[in-house]
Amino acid sequence: MTGWLVVAGLGPGSDALVTPEVTQALAEATDIVGYIPYVARIAPRDGLTLYPSDNRVEMDRAAHALEMAAAGHRVVVVSSGDPGVFAMAAAIFEALEDRPDWQSLDIRILPGITAMLAAAARAGAPLGHDFCAINLSDNLKPFEVVEKRVALAAQADFAMAFYNPRSASRPHQFARVLEILRSHSAPDQLITFARAVSTPEEAIRTVTLTEATPEMADMRTVVIVGNSMTRRVGRFVYTPRSVPKPAPRPQP
Amino acid sequence: MTGWLVVAGLGPGSDALVTPEVTQALAEATDIVGYIPYVARIAPRDGLTLYPSDNRVEMDRAAHALEMAAAGHRVVVVSSGDPGVFAMAAAIFEALEDRPDWQSLDIRILPGITAMLAAAARAGAPLGHDFCAINLSDNLKPFEVVEKRVALAAQADFAMAFYNPRSASRPHQFARVLEILRSHSAPDQLITFARAVSTPEEAIRTVTLTEATPEMADMRTVVIVGNSMTRRVGRFVYTPRSVPKPAPRPQP
Repeated sequence: MTGWLVVAGLGPGSDALVTPEVTQALAEATDIVGYIPYVARIAPRDGLTLYPSDNRVEMDRAAHALEMAAAGHRVVVVSSGDPGVFAMAAAIFEALEDRPDWQSLDIRILPGITAMLAAAARAGAPLGHDFCAINLSDNLKPFEVVEKRVALAAQADFAMAFYNPRSASRPHQFARVLEILRSHSAPDQLITFARAVSTPEEAIRTVTLTEATPEMADMRTVVIVGNSMTRRVGRFVYTPRSVPKPAPRPQP
Repeated sequence: MTGWLVVAGLGPGSDALVTPEVTQALAEATDIVGYIPYVARIAPRDGLTLYPSDNRVEMDRAAHALEMAAAGHRVVVVSSGDPGVFAMAAAIFEALEDRPDWQSLDIRILPGITAMLAAAARAGAPLGHDFCAINLSDNLKPFEVVEKRVALAAQADFAMAFYNPRSASRPHQFARVLEILRSHSAPDQLITFARAVSTPEEAIRTVTLTEATPEMADMRTVVIVGNSMTRRVGRFVYTPRSVPKPAPRPQP
């Protein structure tokens, strides 16, 4: 039996956002590995073993999945959103670094609808111009790196999407990020809090930077900060595609 | 008859990357509007009118689609990739600004697999850490804005995805972007050229910044620049999830 490993993005929550490519891989799999709430989205069936595991054990999970694939299983590691965006794909490659014998395995990454793009679609088109994506968690990087990136992104006038903006264990850092944004951007700059997009608990709210409070975000929220041109039209928020040319300097 | 307007992302090329939500909207549509090669992906059927149009007529296309929806048609505007990323969603909202009477229409944006995430998945996980997306075309913004954003993104050590990197009408600008990258980043920083991802013409190539030449990109290419930690493992390229804490300063 020839094993393989697929790292699949399940999208933000709704099955209507799961690609046919991912559905096909799930149908062929013998084993599903992933964080508990993502594995819970997979329907049990004969011949399929589910391995739900806790958060923050990404490296154990990656090694377990690779081990099974090496033993001939057809393994799908499930990620929410897109597996390449703050998710399991990078963890799989980290695990591969120590095991050259696993590097020739049949490994495929299947993209998914990442949270920021599902959220942007619900709000309108706030990422319709140049933008960046920043994971605000300092589990895997010093918070100074987050602060520096947010400040430079504001100087670049990027729209921004923040993943993992706030958790119970680090309630104050998102407040600091809002401070940095306020020091660079206009008070009426728009910021969208998109919670649990495409699930029954979905809630989308757009406010100005002045009105934003840290409590508007939690771990199920993706935050989208507009750039200096982002504006409302009807019930939507969008960022125009164009940046006007600078006005000619007045001649002396 | 109640009309609606859907702006749908068809993903980068393969039908296996079209979400069920988009497939459903296409099945219910009476009219399809979009750039010629994207409309060519839609199978003709009775009761469906196809309106392919040329590039750079986004605003005419948007107004036409909104007009038909206002007249009771069920209209899908098709975009490649994700409609909210350098595509038709923002153009629709621009068209709405001048027509308050259209703002109450049933308008929905349906996300899709955007080119950079499909390309990243094929290469490995080069966008596995904080990253930005920049449209290198100066059709809609001064090129100085592109230069400034690339420089700030390099200072932030973002991985970067470049859309529309190079075209026949502006062959020199991507060369300038490579120069900016070289002035900020190590010569062995990895850069991936992903052409026509998920189509039969797909070609993926990763080189160092030193080896990169402008000719490696064209309008069907998305370019992914790694950050300072991006590296190869086996046949893959990936960016680790972690940034190490800075070493403690030596004590005097």
